Parts: sequence; C-alpha cells; structure tokens
Amino acid sequence: MSSPAPVVLVFLDPAFPDGRLADASRPQLMVTDQGATRGDGIFETMLAVGGSVRKLQAHLDRLGGSAEALDLAIPGQDAWRRAIATGIATHRDQHPAPTAGEDELVVKLVATRGVEGAASPTAWVQVSAAGAAGRRQRETGLDVIFLDRGYDSDVAERAPWLLLGAKTLSYAVNMAALRHARKQGADDVIFLSSDGRVLEGPTSTVLLAHVEKSDDGSTVKRLITPQLDSGILPGTSQGALFTAAKAAGWELGYGPLEPQDLLDADAVWLISSVRLLAPVNRIDGKDIGTPALRKELTAELTGLYAGIE
Amino acid sequence: MSSPAPVVLVFLDPAFPDGRLADASRPQLMVTDQGATRGDGIFETMLAVGGSVRKLQAHLDRLGGSAEALDLAIPGQDAWRRAIATGIATHRDQHPAPTAGEDELVVKLVATRGVEGAASPTAWVQVSAAGAAGRRQRETGLDVIFLDRGYDSDVAERAPWLLLGAKTLSYAVNMAALRHARKQGADDVIFLSSDGRVLEGPTSTVLLAHVEKSDDGSTVKRLITPQLDSGILPGTSQGALFTAAKAAGWELGYGPLEPQDLLDADAVWLISSVRLLAPVNRIDGKDIGTPALRKELTAELTGLYAGIE
Repeated sequence: MSSPAPVVLVFLDPAFPDGRLADASRPQLMVTDQGATRGDGIFETMLAVGGSVRKLQAHLDRLGGSAEALDLAIPGQDAWRRAIATGIATHRDQHPAPTAGEDELVVKLVATRGVEGAASPTAWVQVSAAGAAGRRQRETGLDVIFLDRGYDSDVAERAPWLLLGAKTLSYAVNMAALRHARKQGADDVIFLSSDGRVLEGPTSTVLLAHVEKSDDGSTVKRLITPQLDSGILPGTSQGALFTAAKAAGWELGYGPLEPQDLLDADAVWLISSVRLLAPVNRIDGKDIGTPALRKELTAELTGLYAGIE
Repeated sequence: MSSPAPVVLVFLDPAFPDGRLADASRPQLMVTDQGATRGDGIFETMLAVGGSVRKLQAHLDRLGGSAEALDLAIPGQDAWRRAIATGIATHRDQHPAPTAGEDELVVKLVATRGVEGAASPTAWVQVSAAGAAGRRQRETGLDVIFLDRGYDSDVAERAPWLLLGAKTLSYAVNMAALRHARKQGADDVIFLSSDGRVLEGPTSTVLLAHVEKSDDGSTVKRLITPQLDSGILPGTSQGALFTAAKAAGWELGYGPLEPQDLLDADAVWLISSVRLLAPVNRIDGKDIGTPALRKELTAELTGLYAGIE
C-alpha cells in the first residue's frame, strides 16, 4: 500500500475561532473517545476543487441532521466553515497541487461524542489530496454486486434508533460489504433491502437513466434514484445533480426500484462527493446498457455536475 | 457527570513483549485510525476480580472470531495475555482498590484496522475501576423496553457482511437504542428481530428462567436463552453460567423465543461481563414474575456465577 497522503488537521475548539491546527502525523485522539470505542459520532466527506468546497451548505445541513439523529450537540455551522477554511488554506500552502487539474482536496468533517465521562464532543476537519483511485473509477467505470442490507424498506420510519439516514462513524458493515465485493472481483456494492428494493451503495447513492423517444420524435431523458424514505442517506451529490439535470430538461423520478430496474436501465451510476459520477459497467456480471450510450450520458451529466457550486 | 476513572493503557507492540504502557490521559490515537473514522475494529469488555480476569479464554476466543469476521489480522492470544497482565498489575499498583469488595476492574481489549494506508492494526488494552452503576443494577434490577433491531432472524446466515455475531466498534445503533430507552424512563433494551424473535440487549445477553413442579413433586428449574443462529453475539457470561447451572441440576434451553415467553417467565435477566446478572423487573411496563422468586433465583444464579473462573 502506498504511504498515506499528508493530512492537515484542524480541531474545532472554542478557544480558537478559526480552529486549532494540530499535527496529524502524531496521535491527537484519546483512546477513550467514544468515536473510537463505539463508532459513536458522525461525519461528512466533501470535495474541494481549486480551494472551494462543493455543496458545502448541503454537507453542513446533513451533518446537522446526523447530529440530531444521534442527540449530539455539535459546533455551529460558522465554526465548521472557519475550520474548513483554515484546513484548506493550510493544505494549499503546505502541499500545493502539482497541476491545476489535480487541485482536488478531500475535506472530512468528524464529530464524536467525545471522551467517556466528558461533556463535550470532539470535532475536527481533516484535509488531504484526493487519491487517483476515485478519478480512475470515474473513467473506467465499476463492476458492482448486489448485497442484502438486511433491513426492510419500511424500518427507518418505525425504528429511528437504527439511525438510518444518519451518516455515523459506525461504518464497519459498509467496509465489510466492500471487502466482500472485492473478494469476488467486483469494485463496489449496491445494497438491497430484505424486501428486494434497491437502496444505496456503502459510500454512494444509486442513479439510473432511461432514454426514450417520445411520440413526437423528441428524446426524453429520465434520471431516477431510490426514494428517500427507504432508509437511505440523502445524497448531497444526487440532490445537486437532480437540480442541474432538471434545469437542463431531464425528467426526474424517485423509486421504489427493484434490481431489474437497474438491469434494464440505459445507464446506472454510483454518485458520491469525492468519486463523483462513476458509471456502472456490470451488476452481478450483467452488462448495463451499451458502452456508447453510457459514455455519452456520463459525459453529459458530468458536465452538468461540474457547474454545481 | 463525574470525572472519569483513571485508565491504564497498554498498547500491543511487537517491540514490547509485555505491551507498551502509555499515558491514557493524553492523546494516543491518530485521527486517521480507522477505528475512529469508520468504527472499523473489534473489542471485548471483561471483568477482573482480585486481579484475575473472568472467562479470559472465552473473551480471547470471541475476539479472534470477531477478527475473522472482519478479516482483521490481530496479535496472538499470548501478546494479549501479556498486555492484560501488565495493565492489571499497573492499575492495582497505581490505584489500589479502597476495599477488597471493590477490587473489580474493567479490562477492555480493542483492535482497529489501524491508520488509513498503514498495514497493521492498532491494538490496546485499557484497564479502569468498575463503576458503581453496574453493581447497583445487579441489586435493584432493570426496567426494560423491547425495540425492533430491524433484521430478521435468518439474515446472519445469508449475509455475513452484516457482521452479526462479531463484536465490532460500530456501536452507534446500540448506543442510540439505550438513549431511546432512557428517554422513555427505562434502563435498558431487549432487541427483537423484524419477525418478532427475542434477540439480545445492546450490551448483554437475555436469559429467562422457569420453575415448575414435576409429576413426582420435585422442582424443575430451566434456564433459557435465544438461539445463537438468530444473529446475536455469543455471550461469554451466558455460556459460563449455563455450564455452571447445568452442573447444579438446572435444565437448559435455547430459543427461538418470542416476547410473550419473556413476559410469562418466572424471571428474566440481562447478563454481561461487567454488570453480571441484572434482573429485569419490568418489560414495557409489565412486571416479570414475582419479586420474591426473582430475588431467590438471582441469588442462586449469582452464586453459581461467582464460582466461574
């Protein structure tokens, strides 16, 4: 494995209005922090291009929603914005991107319930260069497998303590699902509910497209994603792309979706904040759509997405 | 909240055969440790009485099983045993128990997938004095509510990536369930599967007892726990108590169990390694058995459990 990219670390700290810079190459967390001992905390992963975070407000809002789901009192959005600015400026200063085209930073926000017995959360921003793997997968596309998530699609409504729809640090199952896929030679996973609905990827939202000729000969393009109330995470990238696609004349649709809907689509993508729009070439070994149309639609949507702030 | 008890911290480190003592009052974990960023790791919580860990082998074996479920290469049992011995000896030296009756230490074993991009796990032992809360609940008993765990009772077999039966650091749902119970004035939770089977507590195993007169006038006592293949954690305390109870003439039984089985029982307990055998007074507001019989059975089983090494 290659050595990790340098990380710039900024703790949110009331004594430091712009955040407190700390050396990420040294230990900075207590072993009794409940983020570490119980995965009891929340996070966001964002992309900064040319020093500017994409969809910052949507990420801060989702972080707030996750905090609410976990009864976690986290710092206000202004404190996050200042610490993010400090982290990005410091990273760009200490580790300038080799070329403008590579000026992509991953900005991660983390808030934990803090040290056991303490009253306040631990909150930090970490900034590092975006790896090449994500950029590569945008180009080459993904082989994906379906995996059962174990939950039925109604459980989120009736059991809020399951924290579905909150982005918690308890990601062991998501990581195990990705390892399971890789052992089978696949790149990624699309989770299904126990009642057979399409949910989401372990770290992404599922999108599909249909292209049809309408009666008057014009082309109708439709972009579809699973409905939110099935207990999936609201995708900030999906939300932003839907807005842009609608403005460009696409029709929008929301599930329920079944596996066959994906297999029948003209294109399927996994979309997430850092890897962006990664086309799915195959699901469970079955080709999705045609390479030419997939490429054309990916280019069109990627272009729309690039216009998002 | 009271200030946390002093923690003795010992890292497993190939350069230190007996473990490397570290100052737990200072940060010792990297923020990029995947235990902290993804709850990607495993743990055990054990009780040491008079300096000796109860059921040490069973805990080490379960830690090994959890590691296997997560494809995590952790140090061998001998390294854990040495670090545990160092941690306990150091704690007893630095913080002697005020009285022999309070000489109970909580010994926690943690192994994470390590720092992102690194090849080796982070592994440590932390030792602290057992709090009074657990001892109190053994005496006073618990008010419990049923909560839906969202999974059906067959999912563990068909979806190993859900890591049911592994004790991972991804405990956010368990913690949220306990908070949900406390908001309702209850002390603890018994999870049910989506198909209505009794599973386990967020940090404990469920036991129930029936006492019956047999045809020949003798008393038959039966101790019952949910069957393991429903995706619950194999309880080290339940396992040890069952062995001791069988030797003392109890009959043993294994689920499937439904909520009504608990409501109809003569006694119900939540059993775990530190709190031990905590009697359940009420479930969803309904009294379980009678106080007198509950007290008698709790005393008998607690006595049997005290003989376990």
